[in-house]
Amino acid sequence: MMPIFRRVAVIGKYQRPSATTAAEGSREVIDGIAQFVTAQGCELALESETAELLGLGHYPTLDVEGIGRQCDLCLVVGGDGTMLGVGRRLASFGTPLVGINQGRLGFITDVPLDSYQDALIPILHGEYEEDVRPLMQACVMRGGVCVFEALALNDVVVNRGSTSGMVELRIEVDGVFVANQRADGLIVASPTGSTAYALSAGGPMLHPSIPGWVLVPIAPHTLSNRPIVLSDAAEVAIEVVGGRDISANFDMQSLASLQHGDRILVRRSAHRVCFLHPRGWSYFATLRKKLRWNEGGS
Amino acid sequence: MMPIFRRVAVIGKYQRPSATTAAEGSREVIDGIAQFVTAQGCELALESETAELLGLGHYPTLDVEGIGRQCDLCLVVGGDGTMLGVGRRLASFGTPLVGINQGRLGFITDVPLDSYQDALIPILHGEYEEDVRPLMQACVMRGGVCVFEALALNDVVVNRGSTSGMVELRIEVDGVFVANQRADGLIVASPTGSTAYALSAGGPMLHPSIPGWVLVPIAPHTLSNRPIVLSDAAEVAIEVVGGRDISANFDMQSLASLQHGDRILVRRSAHRVCFLHPRGWSYFATLRKKLRWNEGGS
Amino acid sequence: MMPIFRRVAVIGKYQRPSATTAAEGSREVIDGIAQFVTAQGCELALESETAELLGLGHYPTLDVEGIGRQCDLCLVVGGDGTMLGVGRRLASFGTPLVGINQGRLGFITDVPLDSYQDALIPILHGEYEEDVRPLMQACVMRGGVCVFEALALNDVVVNRGSTSGMVELRIEVDGVFVANQRADGLIVASPTGSTAYALSAGGPMLHPSIPGWVLVPIAPHTLSNRPIVLSDAAEVAIEVVGGRDISANFDMQSLASLQHGDRILVRRSAHRVCFLHPRGWSYFATLRKKLRWNEGGS
Amino acid sequence: MMPIFRRVAVIGKYQRPSATTAAEGSREVIDGIAQFVTAQGCELALESETAELLGLGHYPTLDVEGIGRQCDLCLVVGGDGTMLGVGRRLASFGTPLVGINQGRLGFITDVPLDSYQDALIPILHGEYEEDVRPLMQACVMRGGVCVFEALALNDVVVNRGSTSGMVELRIEVDGVFVANQRADGLIVASPTGSTAYALSAGGPMLHPSIPGWVLVPIAPHTLSNRPIVLSDAAEVAIEVVGGRDISANFDMQSLASLQHGDRILVRRSAHRVCFLHPRGWSYFATLRKKLRWNEGGS
Repeated sequence: MMPIFRRVAVIGKYQRPSATTAAEGSREVIDGIAQFVTAQGCELALESETAELLGLGHYPTLDVEGIGRQCDLCLVVGGDGTMLGVGRRLASFGTPLVGINQGRLGFITDVPLDSYQDALIPILHGEYEEDVRPLMQACVMRGGVCVFEALALNDVVVNRGSTSGMVELRIEVDGVFVANQRADGLIVASPTGSTAYALSAGGPMLHPSIPGWVLVPIAPHTLSNRPIVLSDAAEVAIEVVGGRDISANFDMQSLASLQHGDRILVRRSAHRVCFLHPRGWSYFATLRKKLRWNEGGS
Repeated sequence: MMPIFRRVAVIGKYQRPSATTAAEGSREVIDGIAQFVTAQGCELALESETAELLGLGHYPTLDVEGIGRQCDLCLVVGGDGTMLGVGRRLASFGTPLVGINQGRLGFITDVPLDSYQDALIPILHGEYEEDVRPLMQACVMRGGVCVFEALALNDVVVNRGSTSGMVELRIEVDGVFVANQRADGLIVASPTGSTAYALSAGGPMLHPSIPGWVLVPIAPHTLSNRPIVLSDAAEVAIEVVGGRDISANFDMQSLASLQHGDRILVRRSAHRVCFLHPRGWSYFATLRKKLRWNEGGS
Repeated sequence: MMPIFRRVAVIGKYQRPSATTAAEGSREVIDGIAQFVTAQGCELALESETAELLGLGHYPTLDVEGIGRQCDLCLVVGGDGTMLGVGRRLASFGTPLVGINQGRLGFITDVPLDSYQDALIPILHGEYEEDVRPLMQACVMRGGVCVFEALALNDVVVNRGSTSGMVELRIEVDGVFVANQRADGLIVASPTGSTAYALSAGGPMLHPSIPGWVLVPIAPHTLSNRPIVLSDAAEVAIEVVGGRDISANFDMQSLASLQHGDRILVRRSAHRVCFLHPRGWSYFATLRKKLRWNEGGS
Repeated sequence: MMPIFRRVAVIGKYQRPSATTAAEGSREVIDGIAQFVTAQGCELALESETAELLGLGHYPTLDVEGIGRQCDLCLVVGGDGTMLGVGRRLASFGTPLVGINQGRLGFITDVPLDSYQDALIPILHGEYEEDVRPLMQACVMRGGVCVFEALALNDVVVNRGSTSGMVELRIEVDGVFVANQRADGLIVASPTGSTAYALSAGGPMLHPSIPGWVLVPIAPHTLSNRPIVLSDAAEVAIEVVGGRDISANFDMQSLASLQHGDRILVRRSAHRVCFLHPRGWSYFATLRKKLRWNEGGS
């Protein structure tokens, strides 16, 4: 029986292999996966930078946009951060992603490198759990002009610099005034991002099926400025009212030196990202494992 | 011009007037509102217990079910607690509610007693903001049988007694295992309830448009057992696994002496409650006022 | 060389051996420890209830008071809860304690059952870390009379019942008004108790050297009612102002049915409890282990 | 009867009067206070910068060091921030301070500008409450050399920049390893600072009598990295292990561009700062007011 995914891409971590990334980024690993994909009867495309960095140019290659246009599935070798990056770039194409990782698994990358074949064969034949995540589309408006635009799977963060005092932010939702907040910053997190930085800052977890963002103030001056979950059908606007040395961060993409009056607009993207997991995968099982629930700890 | 609401009911606080409830529950107040309603050209019905308690039996009366069946609007004189009670009882009829309160306004009761006429006249003529809230339908299953059933607008709370140790609860969503938690208890709160007890226990606020419940553990033993927002399209099951002297509370309606193996099931009711507010009302303005945001405190 | 502790007592868990306590409370375990103590050249005393329950009456026995008066060291076989109980009862005698536990170690019991001989031999010869903990002395005053008195190593907790609303408590320190709080309850925790229930309720950890208690409100209605650390040289008074079905709990000893006007007084006891740990023991290492710091979690 | 404080200094806010500081920094205000002090029979000294900025050079002037050496009392006109600055500079002289402020009072400045005469007369004659606060002495060690040194009344904060990821910090107490933490940063707060930034970041309040600091991680990656209160008799060392664009901040004095391996050392200063308050002042009353306890909010 043929795989249901005919054209399969492989992407490694976007960086030159180093001591710490040796295993996942290494030539042998990617080479092995490439051969495995071919052996399964799929048409292989290696992401071109990955191929070049690792000296694997003898395989057919495509750039990321080419992968989006031509491939049915993309295997990503790396951690959650790598997955987020690839997910944003492939979002407009709808290409589903599988994350292969070594060592401790992530929230979204859950195929272990040392047994990826066992996990991938069923997936290639249509046996998988689909895990669709909303995407945030954000822009920074300055004097009526969009000066920065980005997609984010995790969060949009506006925050102060390392030696400056609090920022003051004015929050609006669909043009309705919500609050003025003084704080270290503000996180607007998607369900995916709710288990990342937002959780550290005191936010709740949002199940991926919740059509909302959570706004989490970071160390707010007013103690009743608590996290609030808003519909993702609304446009959230964050205006920089006070403070200095302020930045906006979209996942890890940053725009520094925000000015008073700048407005960061966040709305739901028309695109979503689709991760595929092995059969039996459960969002809650991942939470239990990553957050060490039910381990009898202290 | 005639009011768009033709048959209008008036309900006072469900209790004999006392020192503390003198003003809102008093004969004069309800009498005045009744006369005002009639003067507006509406057909009046006084809730029968209210009429009896206050000696206002000369007005036409209806019991709450009769109000639901026959009236187009219900004016409730009292605080948020009174509104929640009336809201649950009228939910299946869809009768919209207006809350009239004295002193400090509530999250949902926002027509001040001392100027209710100014607020009600536009509302009666169709000038209002609609504020629709989801309702939780809960039951307690014991040995396959439902032994208690209730609606809740705020929350379902399972918690320990005053001298007992932690409860242990097993949480499932649509039959999928979520977590075992040891804690003082667990709150399942609607968006309406998210600004009540759940907020005190560390939960986030949920905008009323969010189709979800937030599960907030009370003083959980495992520090990573953080609040989680789940879709209200799913059925949440809470099974009592350990502990003693445990109760389930639905808004303020209680079932004590839960047994190990009891399962509390929570799902979205087919009914919703509709509150009407004066034009210009804003959910966020209410939050700002009740939570004292933007007051320059501390 | 002779042990520096000449008369050594052994206490098992205060309960008939059951399936779950088989190992630590079993006849073989206590018998083995008794023989070991004797073999080290110490004079042994078995706590009389432990001896009776386990059929070990052929050893010399003493009741707990006798142990306090006559022994130089007390070995406690059980978990943190057992240690707290023995610690309170021996506090006035100053007898140092060593905790022997099986399985997962506790915050204060840290000699593993399966290798206790290696750990105890140096301790018996004076090689140990001393870990002195303050003790709370509490009483409940009603109409000017003390109606309940207790010592607590962990905490004093005043809290509501399972179906009742919030309690209202008035807090004073040395007669000075601190605050009125409405909440599920209030925890007054010692440094020892700060890593127990108080931590679950949102309190900080207090190093054992801090001469203070932390007051932690449980799910407080006012969000700025945050934990506060007060000197243990002051007397903390908690007066029951409102609520019903209220209890006071001193470690796990409870007084139910508190009345409005009851005052719970907490002050530092003249006595302290001294735990001995194997050389190399560190308070912070215990925190790291119990709280799973530095494990790369999540 | 003569005032017990013979030589009294007056300091205004350290900045050129602007629109927002007009009232407290204005010539008229300082002039009035200067005349009042003289009229009370005290020997006046105006701080020289204040005198120069406001054109009040006809009064006797002293620089801050001169004030410390020659004056018995220092009146500070400004907010908490101004008081902290003056407090640090006068700490080694032990000069007591009184804070005069307009509008909303602070945690430590509590003499209202519009009625300062009523408050100051009793204070000048010995009727006051003394409020002594510990002071932190901190230095930054790089390659065995102290490259920065500062006093802090509120807190020492090590934190990340606006576009960088988490810092990784290694905490030791008196040479004993406490924890490695990844977070936005770490606050070491005195009791005075515990009601400032540390409170926003989730820390407890410490009564000024507590001889300890509270370490509060800012948005820590590991959820069990909770605030911990440590004795101020110990030296706390914070080593920069990972991250970039990291700063250390001592109250508001900053050292940017910390390097990996830099160690921030914090210990109790031999000096303390003494604030004087009007008779009847209470620490808890200030908390109640600033944190809006007991106001029936929400």
